[in-house]
Amino acid sequence: MGIHFVSATADEVVAELEIGPQHHQAYGIVHGGVYSGMIETIASVGAALWARQHQQTVVGLENQTSFLNAVREGKLRAVAKPLMRGRRTQVWAAQITDDKGRIAADGKVRLISLEAGSAVAGETVRVQTVKK
Amino acid sequence: MGIHFVSATADEVVAELEIGPQHHQAYGIVHGGVYSGMIETIASVGAALWARQHQQTVVGLENQTSFLNAVREGKLRAVAKPLMRGRRTQVWAAQITDDKGRIAADGKVRLISLEAGSAVAGETVRVQTVKK
Amino acid sequence: MGIHFVSATADEVVAELEIGPQHHQAYGIVHGGVYSGMIETIASVGAALWARQHQQTVVGLENQTSFLNAVREGKLRAVAKPLMRGRRTQVWAAQITDDKGRIAADGKVRLISLEAGSAVAGETVRVQTVKK
Amino acid sequence: MGIHFVSATADEVVAELEIGPQHHQAYGIVHGGVYSGMIETIASVGAALWARQHQQTVVGLENQTSFLNAVREGKLRAVAKPLMRGRRTQVWAAQITDDKGRIAADGKVRLISLEAGSAVAGETVRVQTVKK
Repeated sequence: MGIHFVSATADEVVAELEIGPQHHQAYGIVHGGVYSGMIETIASVGAALWARQHQQTVVGLENQTSFLNAVREGKLRAVAKPLMRGRRTQVWAAQITDDKGRIAADGKVRLISLEAGSAVAGETVRVQTVKK
Repeated sequence: MGIHFVSATADEVVAELEIGPQHHQAYGIVHGGVYSGMIETIASVGAALWARQHQQTVVGLENQTSFLNAVREGKLRAVAKPLMRGRRTQVWAAQITDDKGRIAADGKVRLISLEAGSAVAGETVRVQTVKK
Repeated sequence: MGIHFVSATADEVVAELEIGPQHHQAYGIVHGGVYSGMIETIASVGAALWARQHQQTVVGLENQTSFLNAVREGKLRAVAKPLMRGRRTQVWAAQITDDKGRIAADGKVRLISLEAGSAVAGETVRVQTVKK
Repeated sequence: MGIHFVSATADEVVAELEIGPQHHQAYGIVHGGVYSGMIETIASVGAALWARQHQQTVVGLENQTSFLNAVREGKLRAVAKPLMRGRRTQVWAAQITDDKGRIAADGKVRLISLEAGSAVAGETVRVQTVKK
């Protein structure tokens, strides 16, 4: 998608995306899937960083994204922060703003924590370095 | 993303996606953003086809996607159907299944109907052919 | 709220509610919170019944409810069915229809499975009979 | 439900609820439907107050509520603020905290704006005083 990470810790993740024609839907505004995907990505990175400190990994359960203001061009900035970080699940909230500071999208991701050695889709989970 | 449309009418949209490494998150399973984006795409196409019959266009408001079974490889098949098609908004439900018929994701998209001539992000909406 | 259970198994829960003035919001239509609450209730009962077969209990994580057609009076009928029942979480989908068969609301609930002996809000979880 | 409004303007709504046994689910913690309903209520009041300034009324479209920390007793405090207030729709975000300041639930409500004279469920919408 072209996401560029600005910073990523277990407390906050910031990323940017330069809007191009590949991010547009038919009417020339940014496609909702870009916002949902960007929010899923940065929330997952933050949650994974926190989970790793507890020898866990995370897998996404739910993504809820609201589209607030239509954007055509420029740079999107997404910021994700934890709402709740537990041993069983985490919830991260994220907002995406455009160049003028208008909120383009607001979303929330719930992730489940997996102990190292759990099975996901037939393979054993290892605690590994998060790709950023 | 590599979505291939199998069929698209105002009553049902079916699309497929061949999973490749670009669809994986760090643990080798399909990234949640792929599911949210695929659901957003097919729901929007169906809603737009119905809206066009009423000289309207649609813009997405909300996307809610639940991730149900982790998938690593093969072909994803997504089917979207309308739950409600009104003059003000539409709600479409979609499910994505894998090669074995397991539900990978289940989602819902709410879209708002715009009359031709409405303004979105500073430009006038025209009723146009939906890109598929 | 006045929910009456028609049937409840680990595979399907059906409940009804006779609309009264206490269920209305200011404009005389059924309040959205009634739909969300009804969906939360029947999904939780179904999930709890399945969990009990595995010596688990469940606690709700997420509730997403779409309001589809405004209803003023008569009887609401809600049906919940499982979308996914795993050892870690369950997802149940529910629809509420009115007397004329119109869909009033459509929702989804994600619940987490807890082993007997887990702690929730400072108390130990026991596997117990579900109140219906 | 026993909601007590502390303050309500078009910019913020604050309400409280004293937890009683009628708010509990089977395990003695506050039922998710209470949180969804409380969030629906305060978001709707705030949105209605803003809509009235523009000769509009609002009807809820979507309610998404995440349950973050289980609560057994005491007083819940809910605060709703607008994320976006447009002429077509509004989105309000709300959080509910317990006596100790822990977040019990976090939710979002999307509402549609209706011009006076629109029809909802077979009746004409009048712009009226919001019941609090």
